[in-house]
Amino acid sequence: MSIQVFGLPISRGVAIGRAVLVASSRLDVAHYFVDPSEVRTEIERLRAARDSVAEEFMALKRDMPTDAPQELSALLDVHLMLLHDDTLTSATKQWIVERHYNAEWALSAQLEVLARQFDDMEDEYLRERKADLEQVVEQILRKMVRDPSHDGTAAGLERVLPPDRDFGGEDALVVVANDIAPSDMLQFKRSVFAGFVTDVGGRTSHTAIVARSLDIPAVVGARDASRTIRQDDWLIIDGDMGVVIVNPSPIVLEEYRFRQRQSELERIRLSRLRHTPAVTLDGERVELHGNIELPSDAEQAFEAGAVGIGLFRTEFLFMNRNGDLPGEDEQFEAYVKAVEAMHGMPVTIRTVDIGADKPLDRMSVSELRHEHALNPALGLRAIRWCLTEPVMFRQQIRAILRTSTRGKVRMLVPMVAQLREIRQTFEAIERAKAQLREAGIPFNRVEVGAMIEVPAAVMILPTILRHFDFVSVGTNDLIQYTLAIDRADESVAHFFDAWHPAVLGMLATTINACNAAGRGVSVCGEMAGDPAFTELLLGMGLRSFSMHPARIPAVKQRILRADTRKLVPRAAAVLAHEEPELEMRRLQAG
Amino acid sequence: MSIQVFGLPISRGVAIGRAVLVASSRLDVAHYFVDPSEVRTEIERLRAARDSVAEEFMALKRDMPTDAPQELSALLDVHLMLLHDDTLTSATKQWIVERHYNAEWALSAQLEVLARQFDDMEDEYLRERKADLEQVVEQILRKMVRDPSHDGTAAGLERVLPPDRDFGGEDALVVVANDIAPSDMLQFKRSVFAGFVTDVGGRTSHTAIVARSLDIPAVVGARDASRTIRQDDWLIIDGDMGVVIVNPSPIVLEEYRFRQRQSELERIRLSRLRHTPAVTLDGERVELHGNIELPSDAEQAFEAGAVGIGLFRTEFLFMNRNGDLPGEDEQFEAYVKAVEAMHGMPVTIRTVDIGADKPLDRMSVSELRHEHALNPALGLRAIRWCLTEPVMFRQQIRAILRTSTRGKVRMLVPMVAQLREIRQTFEAIERAKAQLREAGIPFNRVEVGAMIEVPAAVMILPTILRHFDFVSVGTNDLIQYTLAIDRADESVAHFFDAWHPAVLGMLATTINACNAAGRGVSVCGEMAGDPAFTELLLGMGLRSFSMHPARIPAVKQRILRADTRKLVPRAAAVLAHEEPELEMRRLQAG
Repeated sequence: MSIQVFGLPISRGVAIGRAVLVASSRLDVAHYFVDPSEVRTEIERLRAARDSVAEEFMALKRDMPTDAPQELSALLDVHLMLLHDDTLTSATKQWIVERHYNAEWALSAQLEVLARQFDDMEDEYLRERKADLEQVVEQILRKMVRDPSHDGTAAGLERVLPPDRDFGGEDALVVVANDIAPSDMLQFKRSVFAGFVTDVGGRTSHTAIVARSLDIPAVVGARDASRTIRQDDWLIIDGDMGVVIVNPSPIVLEEYRFRQRQSELERIRLSRLRHTPAVTLDGERVELHGNIELPSDAEQAFEAGAVGIGLFRTEFLFMNRNGDLPGEDEQFEAYVKAVEAMHGMPVTIRTVDIGADKPLDRMSVSELRHEHALNPALGLRAIRWCLTEPVMFRQQIRAILRTSTRGKVRMLVPMVAQLREIRQTFEAIERAKAQLREAGIPFNRVEVGAMIEVPAAVMILPTILRHFDFVSVGTNDLIQYTLAIDRADESVAHFFDAWHPAVLGMLATTINACNAAGRGVSVCGEMAGDPAFTELLLGMGLRSFSMHPARIPAVKQRILRADTRKLVPRAAAVLAHEEPELEMRRLQAG
Repeated sequence: MSIQVFGLPISRGVAIGRAVLVASSRLDVAHYFVDPSEVRTEIERLRAARDSVAEEFMALKRDMPTDAPQELSALLDVHLMLLHDDTLTSATKQWIVERHYNAEWALSAQLEVLARQFDDMEDEYLRERKADLEQVVEQILRKMVRDPSHDGTAAGLERVLPPDRDFGGEDALVVVANDIAPSDMLQFKRSVFAGFVTDVGGRTSHTAIVARSLDIPAVVGARDASRTIRQDDWLIIDGDMGVVIVNPSPIVLEEYRFRQRQSELERIRLSRLRHTPAVTLDGERVELHGNIELPSDAEQAFEAGAVGIGLFRTEFLFMNRNGDLPGEDEQFEAYVKAVEAMHGMPVTIRTVDIGADKPLDRMSVSELRHEHALNPALGLRAIRWCLTEPVMFRQQIRAILRTSTRGKVRMLVPMVAQLREIRQTFEAIERAKAQLREAGIPFNRVEVGAMIEVPAAVMILPTILRHFDFVSVGTNDLIQYTLAIDRADESVAHFFDAWHPAVLGMLATTINACNAAGRGVSVCGEMAGDPAFTELLLGMGLRSFSMHPARIPAVKQRILRADTRKLVPRAAAVLAHEEPELEMRRLQAG
């Protein structure tokens, strides 16, 4: 029977495929299809991991300290029972045999099925016993991840086609989860999933932002979608309307396949603007840069007509590595790859913004509870974290500096807010340069810029402009701190407002100060890629935008139709108004 | 053997007493001493609660759904074993019999002892089994809290003297915990504890601020204090040096008792300033108000020479009530009590600031994991929360309005940042007034003020001053958001800097705008009570300070020696400087 689930439309487009239910914390598990010939090996991997955990439990029982509570042994017995429970092992095998899921995926898929049984229990105390099952499964998963031939992290996530299916984007797989961690979103690029649905999240949550920037159809805030939808259901995600259609009728399915083809045509139409320069009607030249997350994204940016990379996020190098850090050469190669793909156009590499909602490494639940900062967005992240890891930081700086011999490279420092940080940052850069000189490794002059994303940074712009060559405004964080609103928190997300006079005032102050000082200024937050703000930003004097490559054509279309002589007074009127958005609409209508 | 534990000195003074180890989440458990005649009743309460849990477990086993995993029954058996384990029950009884702890306290004290055994285990998997023990104990505690005759929450926490001890402040009890939730800090006022030591926390953490404002000697950030110190150890907390001396020698003990008496004398000396008006050398009159957390604190403020209450926090009414809300009459009575204690001087009542690190109700761990906001400081709190609870909000407004017939009352709204919130707030006030009029209940005009604690509020001051009668600057939150630094996060607490030019700039902007508009402006954050900032704030034009009553004498002393004609140009020079603190020191030295 076909049912509909409603949520928030956060990323346009249509995805059609089978539901894959994933526990919030299990997206780091490898998801790939195995060849039918590998099914036996896969089952064997599962069995070996389980047996190894069982042996560990027995050893623990055997070596139990004499003063340990006797209940510990009894608990281990129960966990051994769970380990050998048929509902866990046989059904997991079935996922491997029938669907060709790899062993980790099969095990976590079955865990989801069993977890439902617990969730449906009336008694809270019994429901909480689910944790025991999860812990046992966690032990098995860990054993498998350690198997080097099937690395479940980064490398293992290449998009592997299912052996027995037509995988032409029409019957792909769709992730259904309670929530998805930002670090897991990156994996969508290289996994088999074509869209996702989550129970929580708002229009401005980090997950939503990443989905939009990846151009993956998605619906978030769909309340109990992950309870309503069952493993393997057929799903249509309508990212325009925020609707998920579960097990659609053939007529509805045909309708959506038609819409998928339509939007593909629209995309082709806009892409014809690719080689048109972004110049306003009155001849003002505007630079449109791309924001990228992986070196391989640079190609897409180039194809979309970007004249450079305004924001190359480097977090991908640091994620899902089990605490290991990337080496200098590995970084250098990644940066060179992006630089070469841009064919001589500038690439702005941001030093790593780890921390906050971008953890270096997934922590266990107990670590989360005890060590996780109460307010990670206000904690040790970005430049603050880098300054506490000077060896790592200098390594990244050296890798960026070395890249300068291969193309035009700039360095961008996130979260700058204090003079002390600025001094320490430039000391680190000078030391990195000295190290390179000493080793005889060549590098060219690299401009260094500051991200403006903390309110304090706007207030100390004169200081910042005295030290840095350029600035780039990260509007998402700037709005978050200025309004004290976490966009990922659905209870207050409706207050996250880019039109707030305080936000627009800070933007105008920053653009004016930089233009007056003759320093480059760019906006690289979501506002830059939202055509609703293009005219206002042009009117404020902004001439450099950086956005996801997919947004470039729509923004360029706005610029081609704009006349900055009319937009400057309009922006001034909007900025002076208590309710800027209303005033903008009034002026546009008039 | 005497050992020393080092931490951060966050609240001055000396406390001497026995260590009471408390799990982070167990401070909401009632802590009081029972009369020797009640020991039997107390043991009976414990037994009844345990038996009741055991019956529930048996019932769960009996009524288990047939399709439930068979391991569930086995798990319940283990939990039944835990419930009847002698190391839990006998030892708990001993705490009651020997120390006269009430049953809840005794049980959680014993849980701490047993939890250590788990923490000391080498194997991570075994260590995590501690959770089962905690869950079982949690069930017993819940049963006892529900007993109405011994309400373990608010009412039960009156300071009850231990029956067989000299409790003259010399051998009090000292809490040792990994961390203490802000909501639990309130309980120190009415509990048997004379000081505390925590493993985590920084100089500017919320816990530290509350400790200072309560004038309780405390050491935080003492790393593994809660592992080093054992239940019932003798402790000296040296809040000046940040040292905890465990099991001190008699000589050391005598030394510290001498210091305790000394600081009492200093306090008496400063209190002589009580009736001296706060007037500068050049005749500028300054108002010093008190910040209070409980109606009974008003007396202390009056005694300290406060000319009013600048900030009456109302969270105490909403805390530790198990989700229940205070009624209008209960609120009215609490407010009247404070107003009467101030003998006609004004009392500024802040509408409730619930949310963030001030949760309405303690949530279970599973709720915490799933429902707790990732960044509560940027989430649903203060006025945002009130506007989502309109019935509750109007009730508080009505209670405040009604108090106006008993004395001079003002209303203060926290976290104001958006025009929409301002409009909704005044709509709520108008509706509350209409309701009172309709019911024929009298009230007088009540001035309404806005807390300035979000950067956006500073940027929309003209809008705020058009709606509100006065403003009060909450510097702690304003610094937090402006710098994007959570003061409670020890990894970044060193960046929490009241001297940051952005912070001082926002303060100056606010004071100037209010003085120019003829609107009252006060500072009620920690800066107001810190003598290091008194001269700067006077120079900026501030004439109203609100602080913990204990801080009033020291600040008044500064004011009596100040000359604002010299301080105005000095403040201007400090504000113009890139490093204001250095400049201030230079000017003071010159």
